[in-house]
Amino acid sequence: MSADPYRIGLLGHGTVGSAFDELLEERSDEIERFNGRRPVISGVLTRSRGEFEEVLAGADLLVELMGGIEPAREYLLRALRAGKDVVTANKQLLSQHGEELFETARVHDVRLRFEAAVAGAVPVVRVLEESLSATPIERIHGIVNGTTNFILTRMARGATYEEALAEAQRVGYAEADPSDDVSGRDAAAKMAILARLAFGSPVHLDDVRYEGIEHLQAEDLEYARELGLGLKLIGTAERLRGGLSVRVYPTFLYGGHPLATISGSFNAVTVESEAITELTLSGPGAGGRQTASAVLGDVVSVMTGGARPPAPPLALELIEDVESAFYLHLDVADRPGVLASVTTVLGEHDVSIKSVVQHGMGERARLVMVTHQVLESRMRAAVAEVAQFDFVRSPPRAIRVIEEEFL
Amino acid sequence: MSADPYRIGLLGHGTVGSAFDELLEERSDEIERFNGRRPVISGVLTRSRGEFEEVLAGADLLVELMGGIEPAREYLLRALRAGKDVVTANKQLLSQHGEELFETARVHDVRLRFEAAVAGAVPVVRVLEESLSATPIERIHGIVNGTTNFILTRMARGATYEEALAEAQRVGYAEADPSDDVSGRDAAAKMAILARLAFGSPVHLDDVRYEGIEHLQAEDLEYARELGLGLKLIGTAERLRGGLSVRVYPTFLYGGHPLATISGSFNAVTVESEAITELTLSGPGAGGRQTASAVLGDVVSVMTGGARPPAPPLALELIEDVESAFYLHLDVADRPGVLASVTTVLGEHDVSIKSVVQHGMGERARLVMVTHQVLESRMRAAVAEVAQFDFVRSPPRAIRVIEEEFL
Repeated sequence: MSADPYRIGLLGHGTVGSAFDELLEERSDEIERFNGRRPVISGVLTRSRGEFEEVLAGADLLVELMGGIEPAREYLLRALRAGKDVVTANKQLLSQHGEELFETARVHDVRLRFEAAVAGAVPVVRVLEESLSATPIERIHGIVNGTTNFILTRMARGATYEEALAEAQRVGYAEADPSDDVSGRDAAAKMAILARLAFGSPVHLDDVRYEGIEHLQAEDLEYARELGLGLKLIGTAERLRGGLSVRVYPTFLYGGHPLATISGSFNAVTVESEAITELTLSGPGAGGRQTASAVLGDVVSVMTGGARPPAPPLALELIEDVESAFYLHLDVADRPGVLASVTTVLGEHDVSIKSVVQHGMGERARLVMVTHQVLESRMRAAVAEVAQFDFVRSPPRAIRVIEEEFL
Repeated sequence: MSADPYRIGLLGHGTVGSAFDELLEERSDEIERFNGRRPVISGVLTRSRGEFEEVLAGADLLVELMGGIEPAREYLLRALRAGKDVVTANKQLLSQHGEELFETARVHDVRLRFEAAVAGAVPVVRVLEESLSATPIERIHGIVNGTTNFILTRMARGATYEEALAEAQRVGYAEADPSDDVSGRDAAAKMAILARLAFGSPVHLDDVRYEGIEHLQAEDLEYARELGLGLKLIGTAERLRGGLSVRVYPTFLYGGHPLATISGSFNAVTVESEAITELTLSGPGAGGRQTASAVLGDVVSVMTGGARPPAPPLALELIEDVESAFYLHLDVADRPGVLASVTTVLGEHDVSIKSVVQHGMGERARLVMVTHQVLESRMRAAVAEVAQFDFVRSPPRAIRVIEEEFL
């Protein structure tokens, strides 16, 4: 007599749902051989078929691949309250209603797993969870949006933003409306989830400051190439002054940084802690089969007892204003006194300059500077004031810079 | 009333043992807060203190950080037979007596964890274990020896092998007798353990073919730099013709390969599978605190039920003869007919040449070629025959090449 099958209720049967269905079919023999129980899909709910209560009643665990906030939120809360374990890939939901879900799972002593919600097939959730006990994490840097990384990789090879976006749409890496990706909002949602996990403190999507890549110019990438820097959309979550800062910005990275060489639609996350120094994980960020593989990994973890209900949250203060070095690009009229005016304003805001390059271009000139570390609020105020000069011909572009720190 | 403490018996109290002791002390509050039980060291066995039976009797789990084969093997077998879980960092033991230990753990239904035995703080064991159910692994490439990677990184920056080794010894990355590292044997032991884990099939250290880095020359690194290649000591474990091949060789990697940029004493592993394509993990390969952190991660996994006893082994045939592209370096007399003689011999052994560079250097010339994929046995036979020519002035150097395959 063999063990009862392990019954999975599947909510949603789109690209990832069908990929999950297919992968489970392929792998169920092997999973049974290793773990003694055979996972089977006991019910499926889509917009056109199935009934939630029935799928719930017939399942040991629910896999949610519907996306969106409602009815996913309602369904998951009901499942958790009914004592069922849940696996989800829903980053919108977790970044906006995570605390409610985690608390419900905790109270009902059930598991809520979400590896696929963060970095595709890259097992960063698992590694963070397991590492958390062994060593306190100081900082995470991540490339957690494959679409923007694909676009930036193409731009680094000479494409304009528009050409790179069009190519991303053609090959299926960007949606027809790419705004969630290119604005940095998708990455911000993932960083909120990662920060919650790494630091144990609630982080809502609204707590994450973010900027996208829409305003980057080909010449910013040229500048990066000349200096051996990478230009990436970097999410950061770090302990700071006893609190926590979570943010997503286009950022220059020195060439030796582990994230500088991550190209195409890949995702990567670097975890820094005192005991392990620096750990980097990278892999494909998206794709139905990759996501399905992460979901199935979670299912097997729960099925074999290798996952715990969420711990109660800590509450760290969210730090808004952090220090950074900046690259500042100004498009100015080529006339005497420009550099003096700009540097005076920067100086008044405590922005100290590390290097300046001025390129005369007939009537117009480009002024490119890199600053030392400065509070972002000060830099923002300085840039706003500089933008007022009549010799500044287009909006200044300030891009953060991560410089070599150790190794 | 709080839960009973979780009692850890510690075998060995050298560098890693003390670091583990210290890290546990620092982290036990946090671990208790998250998991409900407090881990404590209930007994310590060293050469000069403690008694094994007593340490065993007083512990829920044994952590083995003694190293070496005996008495570590005997102690672990006794612990497993007594129904105690075990965490070890002992790669020698696992690569030579792994099957005996795994089988004993399986029969007695206890856990045997060994994250720290493979790639320091890089959680490749955990990721492979968890991924195994979700997707069958096709291939692993790894830089799993920090000492040799440190030496090769220095050589790539212009140092000779002797200078780089001396520096590694000075900063503590290489031992006074570095032969276990530089011969490739340490990496071979780790690849045996990784292969067992990834493919479920027993692999003994003696099954792994390996070559070290002792015979590499500064000019091989120069050649790599000119062509934008990295030269690394690469361990490979892969499914091949229905069997399994495990090997460690100095290897040229194309510049975009995820392992090409791993520098200094870092370790990194790339896992390839159909569903996830390619996943890379990198981080510090050694250091007492890093290893202790990996050990503590294992302890917490076991303590919280997040680890399973070993599965029964499969048995894949070990494939000895695999295909590879080669770089071949010949130091020859500069006289007519040399190239013709060499290419004739290569052709007779089915070695097909992709590119040749000949540098005349007065009386001597260097002949550098890159071959297409060829069975290693054929290449070996061809090189042995070429080495017989009287115009060949020093032993030929054949180094494998991994070329770009996808992306």
